[in-house]
Amino acid sequence: MGEIAEPVARLIESFKKLPGIGAKSAQRMAFHILKMEREEAEEMAGAIVDMKTRIGHCSVCGNLTDVDPCRFCTHPARDERLLCIVEESHNILPIENTHAFEGRYHVLMGTISPLKGVGPDQLNVKPLIDRLQSGTVEEVIVATNPNVEGETTALYLSKLLKPLGVRVTRLAMGLPVGGDLDYADAVTMSKALEGRREF
Amino acid sequence: MGEIAEPVARLIESFKKLPGIGAKSAQRMAFHILKMEREEAEEMAGAIVDMKTRIGHCSVCGNLTDVDPCRFCTHPARDERLLCIVEESHNILPIENTHAFEGRYHVLMGTISPLKGVGPDQLNVKPLIDRLQSGTVEEVIVATNPNVEGETTALYLSKLLKPLGVRVTRLAMGLPVGGDLDYADAVTMSKALEGRREF
Repeated sequence: MGEIAEPVARLIESFKKLPGIGAKSAQRMAFHILKMEREEAEEMAGAIVDMKTRIGHCSVCGNLTDVDPCRFCTHPARDERLLCIVEESHNILPIENTHAFEGRYHVLMGTISPLKGVGPDQLNVKPLIDRLQSGTVEEVIVATNPNVEGETTALYLSKLLKPLGVRVTRLAMGLPVGGDLDYADAVTMSKALEGRREF
Repeated sequence: MGEIAEPVARLIESFKKLPGIGAKSAQRMAFHILKMEREEAEEMAGAIVDMKTRIGHCSVCGNLTDVDPCRFCTHPARDERLLCIVEESHNILPIENTHAFEGRYHVLMGTISPLKGVGPDQLNVKPLIDRLQSGTVEEVIVATNPNVEGETTALYLSKLLKPLGVRVTRLAMGLPVGGDLDYADAVTMSKALEGRREF
């Protein structure tokens, strides 16, 4: 018995490719779209195609953008001496939300991952070195994720960039604010001890 | 500072309308699509439009289908004497998965909900009465959800349909298989007691 009609099954298969979307969620989403107004569904489809057409990588920093160079790279008020390296474009958002960083960004478009066969050559590193050789950057903040791949990449970058005469720093790791000592895992706890600061 | 480019923000807004998709998930999905192959993203957009174009309601039972009447209504081996009433098309799926029901379906396209201003007139009830008056249906299984709206609708239907000379039954409510008595809520527990059966 044809349980799910082919056009619906096709959309479910497509949605299942999205992160965090399993079979049940994909099904729920597709059935919701079936109940939507036609215009609303077409707006969604249009938004997908439009985004893929209009968004590309910034030729300076690698950030995803609809203008090239991106708004971070052309913003007159942002400090050119400070460069924050992130893994992916979306990692910029949580940093911007702090309103504590006024420098510029560089997006690696990935991390070094021997398991996935990603080496430094596959990352946006060459343009980074070019940027640093121009001499305006004084400090590079490595803001890769606090996991194995992020740490490996951070270590690699520090060895690569220090000889260029820039200060290379890493985001602090430790107890999350609002957390509870009892729930901290051993690795985080040891990082918190290691990075302890004087009053 | 333009944190998220407009074409990306537009897709995020669109995804946020889907059930179970909040701001963070919508963002993650949009960023994932940015990294997808262009063909794959276009396949998703195409699947949305194609589904909205090709799927409509079955003129007999109200089920969502790409052929009219739907495959359930035209299937020669399904028992016409048994009719299962569900709220929405997607409720058919869990019933089909049991392989324990061989009858036909009728989709109400909603439930009676005074809070949302939905009365019996807004539901797919008139065609249901027409179907029953043809005289082939012997039993109607009301498979609306085991919640307030589903129960209200079931009660309404039982009063409406019994005078037509059909047997009207309701899905059993009780302890879920594999569950634990300690975790059963009082309402489920009282339904389980009320519906107890002899060995």
